[in-house]
Amino acid sequence: MESKKRPSRRKFLTSGAAVAGLAGAAVRSASGQTPVSSPANTPAPAPAALARAAAEKRLKDLIAYGERSPFVTSLREPADGRPSPDAFGLTFHVVTPLGESVGSITPSSLHYVAAHRGFYVPNIDPKEHRLMIHGMVDRPLIFTVDEIKRLPSITRVHFLECIGNRSRPAHKTVAQTHGMTSCSEWTGVLLSVLLKEAGVQSGASWIVSEGAEEIKGASSVPLAKAMDDCLVCYGMNGEPVRPQQGFPLRLIVPGFEGIYQTKYLRRIKVVDRYYMTYNDYGHLQKDPKVVALTEQLGPKSVITFPSAGQQLPGPGFYEISALAWSGAGAVRRLEISTDGGRSWKDAELRTPAYRMAHTRFALPWTWDGKACELMSRCTDELGTVQPTRAQVAKYWNEPFGPGYRVKGADNTVQMWQVASDGSVHNGNV
Amino acid sequence: MESKKRPSRRKFLTSGAAVAGLAGAAVRSASGQTPVSSPANTPAPAPAALARAAAEKRLKDLIAYGERSPFVTSLREPADGRPSPDAFGLTFHVVTPLGESVGSITPSSLHYVAAHRGFYVPNIDPKEHRLMIHGMVDRPLIFTVDEIKRLPSITRVHFLECIGNRSRPAHKTVAQTHGMTSCSEWTGVLLSVLLKEAGVQSGASWIVSEGAEEIKGASSVPLAKAMDDCLVCYGMNGEPVRPQQGFPLRLIVPGFEGIYQTKYLRRIKVVDRYYMTYNDYGHLQKDPKVVALTEQLGPKSVITFPSAGQQLPGPGFYEISALAWSGAGAVRRLEISTDGGRSWKDAELRTPAYRMAHTRFALPWTWDGKACELMSRCTDELGTVQPTRAQVAKYWNEPFGPGYRVKGADNTVQMWQVASDGSVHNGNV
Repeated sequence: MESKKRPSRRKFLTSGAAVAGLAGAAVRSASGQTPVSSPANTPAPAPAALARAAAEKRLKDLIAYGERSPFVTSLREPADGRPSPDAFGLTFHVVTPLGESVGSITPSSLHYVAAHRGFYVPNIDPKEHRLMIHGMVDRPLIFTVDEIKRLPSITRVHFLECIGNRSRPAHKTVAQTHGMTSCSEWTGVLLSVLLKEAGVQSGASWIVSEGAEEIKGASSVPLAKAMDDCLVCYGMNGEPVRPQQGFPLRLIVPGFEGIYQTKYLRRIKVVDRYYMTYNDYGHLQKDPKVVALTEQLGPKSVITFPSAGQQLPGPGFYEISALAWSGAGAVRRLEISTDGGRSWKDAELRTPAYRMAHTRFALPWTWDGKACELMSRCTDELGTVQPTRAQVAKYWNEPFGPGYRVKGADNTVQMWQVASDGSVHNGNV
Repeated sequence: MESKKRPSRRKFLTSGAAVAGLAGAAVRSASGQTPVSSPANTPAPAPAALARAAAEKRLKDLIAYGERSPFVTSLREPADGRPSPDAFGLTFHVVTPLGESVGSITPSSLHYVAAHRGFYVPNIDPKEHRLMIHGMVDRPLIFTVDEIKRLPSITRVHFLECIGNRSRPAHKTVAQTHGMTSCSEWTGVLLSVLLKEAGVQSGASWIVSEGAEEIKGASSVPLAKAMDDCLVCYGMNGEPVRPQQGFPLRLIVPGFEGIYQTKYLRRIKVVDRYYMTYNDYGHLQKDPKVVALTEQLGPKSVITFPSAGQQLPGPGFYEISALAWSGAGAVRRLEISTDGGRSWKDAELRTPAYRMAHTRFALPWTWDGKACELMSRCTDELGTVQPTRAQVAKYWNEPFGPGYRVKGADNTVQMWQVASDGSVHNGNV
């Protein structure tokens, strides 16, 4: 911490020079005072040299790693009802600003984050990190990250979604109702490659994955899923997985709820039963109806434009834009209603429909300036149709009405109300 | 500039508090001195409150827009032979670190940049920006950015490449030989939608596009191409186009060389002839052979791992990873040679093969520890095969040998030499 307590002379001079360089004024320190004297044997640079050095540093940074426009202000925000993080590390979640999303990829800096027992993002040196495969295997193995990268790679676009991604009537924006889902181009190694290398023993039926974080992020995943399409990822949107997403290795379990996507993956144990872990928020339900509504998510969709909190400038032509996804595979169809569900029109596909990936649909729409209700519903490759809130209530044999709370994962149809003044509101009750 | 000359009291205090908050030390300014007195009527916050405020700000930033790991150091660098920018705004180019790339998408912060007459990135307020369509049209039109966004959107993955992306024997890395190409998920409106709205008159045969930068970035594009697949983009990798890539609007002319991809797009004039502009570096060649080697790029490919400057730790299993692209459409095949071109093996597709997009291929490979020569060559959907340097020399009726300089766009096969110590070098002569 010493370097943070006492800023180095070099940093201090750079800071002063930047001020002078930009404004053409005399060199002064950040506090407005004259610079302190130079260290022995180092002549103080002339102001012009300092200004040039500062300008060069600024340009060098801009060259090295570009930034977005200062006019672009989309930011993540803490999820509604989740406490902000503090020094004691409470559970918290941050949501993706879906209302400003385009295409299918979520910028890595805006990917949603779900953290448990704190926001302590492990600052892992990838050279020190290891992944161990053990348990019911013939050859327990320990991999370095570089060794993982030498194996046959695969790149796939997949969404992640937190089971807590739940629309509530009080939510004011699509970020609040649906922002705990994001989509990335993931690159890594099929978990099956590692498991085959280790040699899974007969009788094994589950794996338990564990991450190098305080709460371990441990989850039990069926062996059949582990051998199918799970990925041990080191790449995300063309660069290393971000720290908030599990750098240097993240397990991707396509289509399963977020908590299975183990960050900072360090251990996979092959076992013959479901292991209960801290992360088991009700996963060991005995009721198969509940199980069916967890683990594998969707089909689900939401209109991102126009959505709550947005403002239509007036009647005329618009494009209704929506995202759809399903844990069961590809989205085959998205329908949009502009009359509160009385009639539906097929929307047009705007991006490739990958399996377990955000898929963009859109519908050209001329708004007549009257109040109306917008809804979207999708159908996945299994033919499963996204349900309404009333349908879910009926499934649970519970009366539907104001204040109804969806049980299990919430993949229900979202309604947005467009008022005659063009303002858009959450229509769910 | 006033705010930059005199750092505000608030900024100053935050800076001091951050130091105190992290180290638990007494509050002090960045220069190590005690803080200056508070402005009148504002009591000085207690150190604990300052520390808490600073910690909260730090966490808030981390929530709002995530960053990459400090262990990840991939950066762009100025292209070889291109002068660094300075206060006088010389032409310069920055290259993507392709050696560390994975998948098909280039992170927006690492997208290559080609700038002419300076690095002055216009800081455009999108609310003030306009796009005019005029010339040989029935209805000249002026669009705001918001109006463009209301039109039917499209999302496509496309590469961009500078015509100057040229491998030279002196280049030490794949970033230097091939880093002036990048690939993004672009979102926008088909240019044909805007042109149809304006009503193109008979006799028109070209468009001239112009950007809101000092040098205007003007280019002439055949009307047939403009009506086919050109995009007016506002989105890039799920967020607004980055300033260095043309925020708020960039014209994407898929498969054509980089200079046609007009940044800060503000004007499209429909005309009946090719307009010569500042950007016409020899495009008005009378020799059809030259024309054939410009405008539409590729087919082209390069091995990104192992590539020059990288080090194999020893014999054993690796995956040879390569990117391929073509201005003429999709890449249909990539072959890799590990014996300097005497024999070739088909590599496996690792990402979708979109038209005019970077496509990732890979080949499992066991290195025996002996010196060898790695090469890749691709074939596109037209059946065109990427040529060798010797083939290009033969085409031009020029003797091939050390120092041969490829004429026109350089889409020749790149050779990497792997030495017996595992070091990798540029094998082109």
